[in-house]
Amino acid sequence: MNPDPVRQLDRLIHEKGRLAILSVLAASPELSFTELRNLLEMTDGNLSVHIRTLQEAGYLAVTKSFRKRKPLTTCALTPAGKIAFTQYLDLLEQFVRQTPRPS
Amino acid sequence: MNPDPVRQLDRLIHEKGRLAILSVLAASPELSFTELRNLLEMTDGNLSVHIRTLQEAGYLAVTKSFRKRKPLTTCALTPAGKIAFTQYLDLLEQFVRQTPRPS
Repeated sequence: MNPDPVRQLDRLIHEKGRLAILSVLAASPELSFTELRNLLEMTDGNLSVHIRTLQEAGYLAVTKSFRKRKPLTTCALTPAGKIAFTQYLDLLEQFVRQTPRPS
Repeated sequence: MNPDPVRQLDRLIHEKGRLAILSVLAASPELSFTELRNLLEMTDGNLSVHIRTLQEAGYLAVTKSFRKRKPLTTCALTPAGKIAFTQYLDLLEQFVRQTPRPS
C-alpha cells in the first residue's frame, strides 16, 4: 500500500461540502446559487462559506448580476479550478484502484 | 450529477490522515504504531489522536503488549471498521465513476 495518493489530495477540495459543489459544477458550465443550494441541500450560510473559500483559492468564479430586477449569483469553475479538480479526481481514482477491500 | 455518494461519505473516515491509516491497515492484518508512523510519515502526536478517534468509533482495535521487554502497540481494523471502510470505498468508487472531468 502506497499512501502517497491520499497525502497528495488537495485538502481544500477534499472537504465533503466543497467536493459536492465542485462535482456538480464539473457537470455544468455554471450554476446559480439557488440551483447549487437546491441540488446540494445546503443552508445559505454553509454554501456561502464554501463558495467564498473556493473563490479565494481561485477555483471558482462568482458573478453577480440581475435577472428580472432580482439579484442573481452564478458560480463556475475557473481554469485553475478545472485543473485542480481533475488532478484530485485522478488521485482519488488511483487511490480507489490500489486500495484493497479489507478481508 | 447526483451528489448523494459524497453526502453519504463517512466524515470520520474521509479525513485525510485517518483515510491513510485505514488504507494501510486494509492491506495488513495488523501494524505496529511505529510501522504506521514510518509508513505514513506522521508525527507521534498526530497519529495518536487519529488512532484514538478511530478506536472510539469502533473501527480500530488497539493492543498493547511487550516485545523484548519493550512496549508494543499494534492496530488492526475491527469487523465494524472493515464494513465501514468497504462502504466508504464503494461510495468513493461510485463518485469517481459518475463525476465528469471538467472540460
